[in-house]
Amino acid sequence: ADPAAAKSRAGQCFVCHGADGLAKVPDAPNLAGQNAAYLVKALKDYRSGKRENEVMSMMAKNLSDDDIAMVASYFSSIAVTVKAP
Amino acid sequence: ADPAAAKSRAGQCFVCHGADGLAKVPDAPNLAGQNAAYLVKALKDYRSGKRENEVMSMMAKNLSDDDIAMVASYFSSIAVTVKAP
Repeated sequence: ADPAAAKSRAGQCFVCHGADGLAKVPDAPNLAGQNAAYLVKALKDYRSGKRENEVMSMMAKNLSDDDIAMVASYFSSIAVTVKAP
Repeated sequence: ADPAAAKSRAGQCFVCHGADGLAKVPDAPNLAGQNAAYLVKALKDYRSGKRENEVMSMMAKNLSDDDIAMVASYFSSIAVTVKAP
């Protein structure tokens, strides 16, 4: 997906998940560099109700498959480097 | 939690999630630097059945609250640096 388009489509997620993919609120998970297939499944499960969360069920309700693909591509494209303890 | 003890308790997770918290199998999410409270909730939901996944329901079934706290502390303690596109 075109990075700029993906970023703008994911804009609605930034208040909790951050434009950098690092959670800005206590209960939200970090999404930076997350596995795209995992994000797609999570969003579809929130949309279908298979998975429930007060905020995410509402956010996912009206997402199209294309929205979901774009949001997943944005967060999974964030480069992550890790240092295990 | 004592890092070495947390790491050994989380050992059972490494085959899919990696000792560095980067997923080693397609469907598994990265857990490196993930929000500890989010990990605790996910594991408890898999244990209670509120959330279902073929592998995770089985893995979480016999985890104690202490196991869950230790595993969550291990993965959340992995340092992560990000670079948004």
